[in-house]
This record gives sequence, C-alpha cells and structure tokens, in this order.
Amino acid sequence: MDHERELLMIPGPTMVSPRVLRALAKPILSHGAAEFTEAYTETLRLQKSLFMTSGTPFLISGSGTLGMEAAAANLVENGDRVLCIENGFFGEKWQEIVPGHGGVADRLTFEWGKAVDLKLVKERLGKGGYKAVFVEHVDTSTGIGNPIEEIGKLVKGTDALYVVDSVCGIGGMPLKMDEWGIDFCLSGSQKAIGAPPGLSLFCLNEKAWKAIEARKTPIADYYTNLKRWRPIMEDPKKYFATPATGMVLGMLEALKIIHEEGLEARWKRHALFSKAFQAGIKGMGLTSFPDEKSLAHTLSVPKLPESVKGSEFRAAIGKFNVITAGGLGAVADKTIRVGHMGSDMVNDITATLSAMEMALHQLGYVKEPGAGVGAAMKVFAKA
Amino acid sequence: MDHERELLMIPGPTMVSPRVLRALAKPILSHGAAEFTEAYTETLRLQKSLFMTSGTPFLISGSGTLGMEAAAANLVENGDRVLCIENGFFGEKWQEIVPGHGGVADRLTFEWGKAVDLKLVKERLGKGGYKAVFVEHVDTSTGIGNPIEEIGKLVKGTDALYVVDSVCGIGGMPLKMDEWGIDFCLSGSQKAIGAPPGLSLFCLNEKAWKAIEARKTPIADYYTNLKRWRPIMEDPKKYFATPATGMVLGMLEALKIIHEEGLEARWKRHALFSKAFQAGIKGMGLTSFPDEKSLAHTLSVPKLPESVKGSEFRAAIGKFNVITAGGLGAVADKTIRVGHMGSDMVNDITATLSAMEMALHQLGYVKEPGAGVGAAMKVFAKA
Repeated sequence: MDHERELLMIPGPTMVSPRVLRALAKPILSHGAAEFTEAYTETLRLQKSLFMTSGTPFLISGSGTLGMEAAAANLVENGDRVLCIENGFFGEKWQEIVPGHGGVADRLTFEWGKAVDLKLVKERLGKGGYKAVFVEHVDTSTGIGNPIEEIGKLVKGTDALYVVDSVCGIGGMPLKMDEWGIDFCLSGSQKAIGAPPGLSLFCLNEKAWKAIEARKTPIADYYTNLKRWRPIMEDPKKYFATPATGMVLGMLEALKIIHEEGLEARWKRHALFSKAFQAGIKGMGLTSFPDEKSLAHTLSVPKLPESVKGSEFRAAIGKFNVITAGGLGAVADKTIRVGHMGSDMVNDITATLSAMEMALHQLGYVKEPGAGVGAAMKVFAKA
Repeated sequence: MDHERELLMIPGPTMVSPRVLRALAKPILSHGAAEFTEAYTETLRLQKSLFMTSGTPFLISGSGTLGMEAAAANLVENGDRVLCIENGFFGEKWQEIVPGHGGVADRLTFEWGKAVDLKLVKERLGKGGYKAVFVEHVDTSTGIGNPIEEIGKLVKGTDALYVVDSVCGIGGMPLKMDEWGIDFCLSGSQKAIGAPPGLSLFCLNEKAWKAIEARKTPIADYYTNLKRWRPIMEDPKKYFATPATGMVLGMLEALKIIHEEGLEARWKRHALFSKAFQAGIKGMGLTSFPDEKSLAHTLSVPKLPESVKGSEFRAAIGKFNVITAGGLGAVADKTIRVGHMGSDMVNDITATLSAMEMALHQLGYVKEPGAGVGAAMKVFAKA
C-alpha cells in the first residue's frame, strides 16, 4: 500500500498542496537573507488578511496549543477572572492553561457537541468583572462550530478581552477578527489553512496590546512573551529566536493559495463540503453527533449505530486508503471524525464517503451502497 | 544568482542533506499513523544515542530558546538560587529567563570570547545552595566552546542540577550527557545536527525528574510542562499537542545520517574543520576572536583588522555566493561568524576560505591570495 497516496481525511493535520511541499524542500535559507525576510514579511501580511485584521500578526514555531498559552501568558495576570466557554475537549484546555498564569477560570460548560446557549453567555457576562473571555471557534473533538460573531456582540458590551481559538476554523469558515470584535485570535498551520503542523499563528489588536502594557506584573514567560517577539513581527530582519525558515516558506505558499482562491469562495467551498458530507452520512443511515444548528464546516462527526464500533469502522475505511480520526472522550467509539478542509477537493469528499459506505456495507449495516455518496453528489451537482 | 546553490555558512541554520529535504517534502502523515509514530519512536531513540544518555528524550515544535525556557520552567521554582555561567550573547539569556520562573540568577560573567575560568566556577559553587547551574556548551555569538565535562565534575560535588545548552555543540562536538553528569541538556535542530530550524530537543535524567516531582509549587506553564509531554515521549501513539510530523521525519533522516557517520568520526571531522579553518584565517592574516584554548569546533569567529569592516567583508564574500553571519554586540563589525558544521563537507570549507580570501584581496588587505586556503588545504591533506 502506498502511504503517500492515501487520503488523509482527519481533522488535522490535513493534506497540503504539492506547491507547499515543494516550498518545504527548498535548500535552507539564512533567517537573515533578504529572500527569507521578505518572504516572512509577505507571509505576515497575508496572515493579517486571512484573519481580517489590522492587528499585529505572529507566526512562530510551536503547535496551536502554544498560541493558547501565549494568550493566557500575556493577557491574564494574578487574580484575573476569566470566562471559559467550553463544549468539547479543546475548550476544556482553557481551564488547565489559565490558572497557571494566575487567572481564575470561570467555566461555562455545555455538553460535548451541544451548541453554546447565548442566553447563558449573556447572563454570565452580566455578572461583570471579567478580564477576558476564551472560546473555541470549532471544537475539533465534536465538530461543533460556535457562534463567534454573536458571542463577540455580547462581549463588546463589557470591558473583557475576547480571545478566540480558531485552530480548526480560520481558512475554512468565516472569521472576521476586527469586525467581530476579537482581540486575540489564534490558529495552527495544519488544518483549514493547508500547511504542515509546526507553526503557531495568532493576531492581537490594540485593545490586547493596551491590556499587556497595563499589566501590574511582568510577563513570566520568555518564549511566549509577545513584547519580545513584536519587533520581529514588525520587521523580520530583527532577531529574537531562529524562525523555522522552511516552514515559513511553506506557510507563505499555503496563504498564497488561500489568497488566490479568495476567502469568500473558500468559505463557500467548505460550507458546501459540510452540506454534502451531512447529506452523505444521512444517505448511508448515520446521523450527526454535534448539534445540526451549529455545525463546523471543516469536519463532520457522524454518530454510529449500536452495531458499528468506531474502531472497526475506521479500520474498514482504512482498507480503502482513506484515513479518518477516532472519536474522543465519552463518545470515543460511538463517533468518528472526518476532516474536509484546506486543500481538499470534491473528489476527496466523494471518495471518502464512498469508502465509508463500502465499509458500512462490509460491516452489514448498509445493504445497497450508493445512496450515501449519491446524496452528496446531488448536493455537489446542484451547487 | 541561484540562491538555492549558495553556500550557507552561517552558524545555524545550516545546509541540510537533500535526504533531509526529501523527507520534509513527503505528503503529510497523520500524527496517529503507525508509519509516523514508529518514525517518532525511532527518532527519539536516535536522539538519546546522540545525547549519550539513558534519560528521557523530548522533541517538540519550537526553537532552541524554547528548550532553555523548558529547563527553567520545570527545574526552577520561587526563590531557587541558580548559577548562570555566561560568556556571550546566548549565555546572557539565562538571567532573562530564570527570574520569570521565580529563580534568583547568580551570574558568573566572563568577557565575551574569553574562556570560562574553572577556578572561579569552583569558588562560586563552594558558596553552596544552588538549585541549578546553567551554561552554554558553545556560545554562538563568539565561537567559544566551554569546558562542559570539567564544569560537570565541579557540579557533581554539589546538589545542584547541571543544565547545558548545547544548541551549537551536539552533533559536532563531544557531549556525553550521562558520563559528564548533565541532568538537562538541550539543543536545536538547525545547527550541527543538520536538520531545519523549528524543533526543540532536549533530554532529562532521573535526577532532573526527581527535582520536578519534588517541586513545592506546580509548574505554571502548559506547553513547556514536561509532565504533560512525558507520556507522549515514552509512547508517541499518545496525544498532547499535534507534532510537526514532517519536521520529525526530517529530523529522523538527519539523525540517521549522524548514526551512519558515527559520533566519534563526526567529532573528529568537526575538530578538523575547526583546525583547518583556524589555519586558513591565520594564513590570510586574520586572528581568532575567541580564546584559542577554548574554541568551538562548529564555527569560527575571525577578528578583523581595523581596515576591514565586517559588513563590507560579508558583502564581498557574498558576491562569491557564500553566506556568512555578522558579529554580535560590541564586536558586531569587528568580527564575522562562519559556521562549519552538520552536513558541511571539506569542499565547503575550502570554498568558503577561498571566498573570504578573494574578498580580502578585493578589499586590499590580502595582496596575493592563496596562502589562507593553502594553509587549510595542508591541514586537510595531512589528516
């Protein structure tokens, strides 16, 4: 079996364009070479455009988690009350990260896969006194998409900083940082952006900078101290720590691809992927685990019938060279997670649904395969 | 001019083997795929062998600086006295990092480029009460190589943890973590190891783990909390944060190349590079900025005559497609820094010395070029 020809349909890392792979394979450049510093500058410019912000872009070596920590390490200090809105595995990380930086995490928890109830957010915000509000755009554990714009409207009426983790959203779903009042927005390279894992990227606006400048206590961390990185992000000819030169070139290529496609077109493509995928799983007799009113467009998380175990299902799909991800937590074996984002094409979606349906046929759950992928095909053909 | 054919002779990032570049360009693997987790396991095994330790290896997304912070964040807590031995730009970072994690940095400072005086180290250690000792193996700012084995012997007589930053040493110069009593040793991917920048790697021994377990206060950080990462490093099938899959494959290839060459042979090769390079710069009338009794083998830092400015010299060398680095700090324009490590070949060294000598000829400092590179050639021919 040729692993390099498999369809990697997990919700990150995702397949990347051969254009990106070729950029990664270029001989190493000096981090001080004009060719590199100009590429870094251009990458940061395109990152700002992707985030739809006039704020400061940061692109540094690390995983998406590092961006979450950077938010807490810079914006939160001793005794600060922070509202953590959670409805999945990744949202639950905030209350592990925030206390380390002195913050008091006030958790507003919804069941995994359930939509955020804006009324409860409003009510909680009404108590006042929050330094910041943390929330996931998409919780990749369940395929839920959270109402970032609407939460932003509620936060706007308070003094709190609005921090959004869009690791699995940006590049695939609308996210308008400035328009939606987001003060700190973070993502990772390896999901809807279509670059390899290894880079943490985020943007800060003036309100976030003012909060950092107004801190009563110094920032404890060194590597995530954004005051140390800021001069480099404003002028990549400066030095703080050696950048991952090849990864930045790969990211530049991925961002150029996004720019060439256009953000609106890209959002539409992902919404269509989601619609087709949902039609497909229903056509083969499955349902959606996350609340259908609040679906992420970047992945789908079908709920499996009692007779089909997630691990067996994934193994059967894998025999058709399609790689999917397992469920997490309490629904580990009752769901699977399928990414459809970034560089993915319609062909990848139909092939994936076909593999799923063949697997369900082999497992005895689907008698006559074709109805699932057929339902998706109708959606694509009509679009 | 073809940038991809230039000789990148800065002290990191360094040129990497096309074998490594090809590994980076492979289609993205799932971080959960057996092909990847087995490669990660093998990479960590080879990393331990490179560090000459039976301790726990860590390989995570980030720059070398992240490893410095991981040492401080995990080993140091409020009020701990820490001895920071410094003789250059990178050593000076410790006293910026340590206080953020509650440590009290006791600085033992030597002039940039001057060797560490072991008598003074012994004297300072005699005061007792240190939680840890931090030192650079090589300070890349000056080309000094510090006596890590000898300092280790002095630290061994105390309770202190011995932390060594070998970002610009390991893979090019002897470093025997267990034998030399090093408790925490860190490096970066992009120097003598011969992989691209973007990965932080370090190893901890049992003494370091015991100190972490015995902490009175919890580790504040999340991303650099090694207790969270340890299960993954012991079994890469587990998950904490998405690893930089392609970068790990590149690192595996680089470590395989090291293993094939053999550590002893590699150390000898770098010692020879250093000897030839020193002969070369003397042959063209330059001297060494760092103390000749304590030279790093991974880079050379020639001191320039009054009539030759570093920036002009580097520009002239660059016209021959050889990229060198500028001096730092007070000797910024009075030195240049030339890396000779990792995947570099004899050919690269002679070509670099030739370019330097042609540049000095053009600048009017060398009348008859050839004596410099000739002196290096003699060293190589005799080896």
